[in-house]
Amino acid sequence: MIIVIKPDASEQAIEQLKRNIENQGLIVQDIKGGNARMLGLAGEVASVSPDSLSRMDIVESVLMVREPYKLAGRRFHPRDTIVAVGQAQIGGGHFSVIAGPCSVEGEDQILSIARDIAKSGAEFLRGGAFKPRSSPYAFHGLGLDGLELLKAARQKTGLPIVSEILSTDHLDAFAQDVDVIQIGARNMQNFSLLVEVGKLKKPVLLKRGLSSSLEELLMSAEYLIKGGTEQVILCERGIRTFETATRNTLDLSAIPVLKQKSHLPVIADPSHGTGHWQLVAPLALAAVAAGADGLIIEVHNMPQKALCDGQQSITPEVFHNLMKKINRVREAIK
Amino acid sequence: MIIVIKPDASEQAIEQLKRNIENQGLIVQDIKGGNARMLGLAGEVASVSPDSLSRMDIVESVLMVREPYKLAGRRFHPRDTIVAVGQAQIGGGHFSVIAGPCSVEGEDQILSIARDIAKSGAEFLRGGAFKPRSSPYAFHGLGLDGLELLKAARQKTGLPIVSEILSTDHLDAFAQDVDVIQIGARNMQNFSLLVEVGKLKKPVLLKRGLSSSLEELLMSAEYLIKGGTEQVILCERGIRTFETATRNTLDLSAIPVLKQKSHLPVIADPSHGTGHWQLVAPLALAAVAAGADGLIIEVHNMPQKALCDGQQSITPEVFHNLMKKINRVREAIK
Amino acid sequence: MIIVIKPDASEQAIEQLKRNIENQGLIVQDIKGGNARMLGLAGEVASVSPDSLSRMDIVESVLMVREPYKLAGRRFHPRDTIVAVGQAQIGGGHFSVIAGPCSVEGEDQILSIARDIAKSGAEFLRGGAFKPRSSPYAFHGLGLDGLELLKAARQKTGLPIVSEILSTDHLDAFAQDVDVIQIGARNMQNFSLLVEVGKLKKPVLLKRGLSSSLEELLMSAEYLIKGGTEQVILCERGIRTFETATRNTLDLSAIPVLKQKSHLPVIADPSHGTGHWQLVAPLALAAVAAGADGLIIEVHNMPQKALCDGQQSITPEVFHNLMKKINRVREAIK
Amino acid sequence: MIIVIKPDASEQAIEQLKRNIENQGLIVQDIKGGNARMLGLAGEVASVSPDSLSRMDIVESVLMVREPYKLAGRRFHPRDTIVAVGQAQIGGGHFSVIAGPCSVEGEDQILSIARDIAKSGAEFLRGGAFKPRSSPYAFHGLGLDGLELLKAARQKTGLPIVSEILSTDHLDAFAQDVDVIQIGARNMQNFSLLVEVGKLKKPVLLKRGLSSSLEELLMSAEYLIKGGTEQVILCERGIRTFETATRNTLDLSAIPVLKQKSHLPVIADPSHGTGHWQLVAPLALAAVAAGADGLIIEVHNMPQKALCDGQQSITPEVFHNLMKKINRVREAIK
Repeated sequence: MIIVIKPDASEQAIEQLKRNIENQGLIVQDIKGGNARMLGLAGEVASVSPDSLSRMDIVESVLMVREPYKLAGRRFHPRDTIVAVGQAQIGGGHFSVIAGPCSVEGEDQILSIARDIAKSGAEFLRGGAFKPRSSPYAFHGLGLDGLELLKAARQKTGLPIVSEILSTDHLDAFAQDVDVIQIGARNMQNFSLLVEVGKLKKPVLLKRGLSSSLEELLMSAEYLIKGGTEQVILCERGIRTFETATRNTLDLSAIPVLKQKSHLPVIADPSHGTGHWQLVAPLALAAVAAGADGLIIEVHNMPQKALCDGQQSITPEVFHNLMKKINRVREAIK
Repeated sequence: MIIVIKPDASEQAIEQLKRNIENQGLIVQDIKGGNARMLGLAGEVASVSPDSLSRMDIVESVLMVREPYKLAGRRFHPRDTIVAVGQAQIGGGHFSVIAGPCSVEGEDQILSIARDIAKSGAEFLRGGAFKPRSSPYAFHGLGLDGLELLKAARQKTGLPIVSEILSTDHLDAFAQDVDVIQIGARNMQNFSLLVEVGKLKKPVLLKRGLSSSLEELLMSAEYLIKGGTEQVILCERGIRTFETATRNTLDLSAIPVLKQKSHLPVIADPSHGTGHWQLVAPLALAAVAAGADGLIIEVHNMPQKALCDGQQSITPEVFHNLMKKINRVREAIK
Repeated sequence: MIIVIKPDASEQAIEQLKRNIENQGLIVQDIKGGNARMLGLAGEVASVSPDSLSRMDIVESVLMVREPYKLAGRRFHPRDTIVAVGQAQIGGGHFSVIAGPCSVEGEDQILSIARDIAKSGAEFLRGGAFKPRSSPYAFHGLGLDGLELLKAARQKTGLPIVSEILSTDHLDAFAQDVDVIQIGARNMQNFSLLVEVGKLKKPVLLKRGLSSSLEELLMSAEYLIKGGTEQVILCERGIRTFETATRNTLDLSAIPVLKQKSHLPVIADPSHGTGHWQLVAPLALAAVAAGADGLIIEVHNMPQKALCDGQQSITPEVFHNLMKKINRVREAIK
Repeated sequence: MIIVIKPDASEQAIEQLKRNIENQGLIVQDIKGGNARMLGLAGEVASVSPDSLSRMDIVESVLMVREPYKLAGRRFHPRDTIVAVGQAQIGGGHFSVIAGPCSVEGEDQILSIARDIAKSGAEFLRGGAFKPRSSPYAFHGLGLDGLELLKAARQKTGLPIVSEILSTDHLDAFAQDVDVIQIGARNMQNFSLLVEVGKLKKPVLLKRGLSSSLEELLMSAEYLIKGGTEQVILCERGIRTFETATRNTLDLSAIPVLKQKSHLPVIADPSHGTGHWQLVAPLALAAVAAGADGLIIEVHNMPQKALCDGQQSITPEVFHNLMKKINRVREAIK
């Protein structure tokens, strides 16, 4: 951390500030440049609030030298983390596709889709039992009954299940029944949920918030790892921008950036990222080419009758063809 | 809702779609323009998913004619809602300022600030007991002890208290102790929290999410009102944009837009909206001039020692002078 | 400028870099903190490309300590610049309103509007002769004929005229006929235009680009001042964000930020900033309360027949009432 | 175009509006839904200003049914346009890579790079002679001398040249010397430049503006085609968002969206799109996987000494390896 001092600050005030910081156990280096005076801080910098420092009369600005995350960062953990459930693995060179409907709607639906995606090579089944919807009048999922249907589909197909948790009220059910607990974009900074889910020590799929920076995403992963789980999958799912031709703007640069800064596996969600089924295949392939460790894709057997997000779901047939191309692109970039 | 049909759609397919929609109890009007074919839908349109309609082969796009909220909207509720706690009122011509520290740090701190702001004319005391922080290593508030300190300050000053709830675990404590329950920007779409807080039938201060549209803000208010409380205050607190000179971009147009579309009172938060204490006063005055029903402002007796958000807190002295100008601007725009 | 060195950089490579920088005439200070190694640069830092430095193997990042503008900044020019045309003045405590139609449509129109706004207290007449339109099929203004009509209106009312230049082809006409040359949002980074307009040494109204940071706006002002004119008015006119309820998001924080960083006068455009005539008055008043040195407002005698931007134009009657409130708010914040 | 009428509009006023629109030669259809009254417009709708309609007392909103571009759109021009210079072709199944330095710096530099990229399979040489820079103190290119050096490189390598035009002052030089005229992001809505460049009837590379919607990009292409050239290449080069980890956010969804809506070829610029050389390869491959018809990539023989954009330039070696992978990904997605 570097504190840039205002040009008109008195020597006395600067000395006072230096002593204050040193009293917090930090090392301060006084830097006198040609036209700038700065204080460089070393030691347990995370304990100092750059915000409060900025508030001081003699401080012009505070520059951060290092990233604020540790457990999620690659600096002290250079080796790739591999998230594994049974045979399925994501990260460290392993690639997996998670597929399934936006929401579980019934036994036939989820079983039929699960069988189809398994045949095409998906390694995880996704399905929403609890759905976050911007409208209180929309379909909010089958709840615990939805989890039961997912379990039945897991039993018949062997696919581990991924489902989104919305509330700490359902921690026990998710701990028991779900293989990978999803934290959705709207809850990426629901810190009480992060703390509790971290304690379960189960794999977590953490989606980037609609307006969250990559640094904030990694800080939310830091909450989970600090809580107790190192099995965190990061997911780019589109950010909110001015462009309205797509539902969100899928930020594929996030994939190589996150893999550079963090040891955690990174996947992409081209379904929510675009909001249009015709765009899912090209963006899925693009994410693979950018180096993603996996994908999460909405597949529905009758998208035009889906109770949610039908517009962005692809059919099992389209998914089957896409999987073939995904494998070819993976080969191509090796 | 208007469904724009693709130019190459067959008459048979269009007829099929019309029948399907009519079977859901809606009225369909067939519109044949010069170069466009459309279906106009009337009736309980909220039950139809525009998303799934868009997914159909013959559908080019779906246009929304009316807003999706009802309880929060002005269309069926033209009269301004007034949120009242004791003598303090917000909305319907009543204006109130909520002030206090980012977080409650100790008895002396909160009492001293509460007395100062009361003297200057604030009508509510704000103070964070549970703090959402992007870093797990930052100060997260005093928790339930913080609520106790707020209660003590309320008893001594008579100011009703506003505090943020982060988790359904604390519903009972907030129901009992807090006068206005704040739902923060990061929880604006934490729908499980909205549902539970709505049931408490207490006044709620709902902050706009960092990347939430005004329509989404009103849909979150819809959750609260549907749950049982009509005492909802909307709060513009800045959105996330590309500009980095300020912490967020305070969107003051939101004030007249929300007041046009909704009967709920609208306030602004110039502290979080700007992130710099020097910008608080000009933006507070601007919000008042734009027609805000109130303000929420961070005031700290020693901002340079604040445990959080010191950079954006003003001192009691600055607050005192600001309150005088606020009153003058209110007079000026009458 | 501070260069943060990668932890694994060799001492030899660091020494090489230091010598290279010193060879460019700069002073380098070697900073060794607890867990960070940095080089502090002093001297004519503007000549060094932070971009190319970042590209070096041993460089982790480059932090900027000072702002990149000089002529437009307050650091070396603390006194407010006042832009003056005849009696009308903007900046340094002087406040003026610029008003008129989006585009000049005919003699009766411009004269009628000019007389009305003069009566209400506007001090400049705006009117577009050349209109930038996103569609090649839209009305693009009357061109040089439009300038003639503006001149006639100036002669009859005494109001100096403000009009937008779109091309260096019209430099002579604007130099001769227009009092304040407007550079529109879409041309804020049309650097060839900036260079040529700067040479005219006439007052310039420089609008912020739709996605331009405040620093970039000041850099464009730097072009103009370096070219030869110090009479530059900065104009906040809304930025592009995800919100669609308004045409743009008027960033009123820009006003106090710009006035802090620069000596140039700052005005706001609530017409383009909101895109809806009902929002013009509240946002105009808000801009004044935030400390604006002036406003630019679209006024049209028959907005529903306007050839462009009718939706955001107010009538002379609404303008008249607004001007009264503007004066009252100016008094209130003194 | 659909006009939604306010619920309280009088029948008389609606009739008046209908007659007014019919008098402009359009067909009006009166649509009476359950809770909405609308007017559907057919005919030469482009001549009507939705803006001015919205301004009317009885109008609630105006909905657009069809896209506003014609010449650039696929609706009336279903076949892919192929842009061709000599042997090199882009679009309609043809793929080309444009490579070269940000700016031409000298004869040895440009020749060396041109030879290297030609060997690796690039089909066009890019190089900036006139550089738009946010700072007036930065390097602005060699100007006409730069064009001469590009011509020399073309002669020696056979590669057609792509260079950016900044001003109508250089139309003659570009018409004579440059094979593909680039219009940069900051000039995408410099309409006077678009009009003049269109008249040259030469291939144009049109970059998306930093905050331009895809519709606006297509409208700017419409200007060029209307002016006289159908040889327009669209280029996605990143948009401005809140994320600061990358210089811009490369919006790869733009590729399939543009190709769906338009017959023009679409390429991507991973250099400006990311701003970091390590991100160029993954994003280049991603763009190819998303269906791009080509790429434009910054290559510099000594990036750490480049006079501009060194941070985002890759070396000829990295480029060589990237080209191999690009070809493999192209095969993979066939």
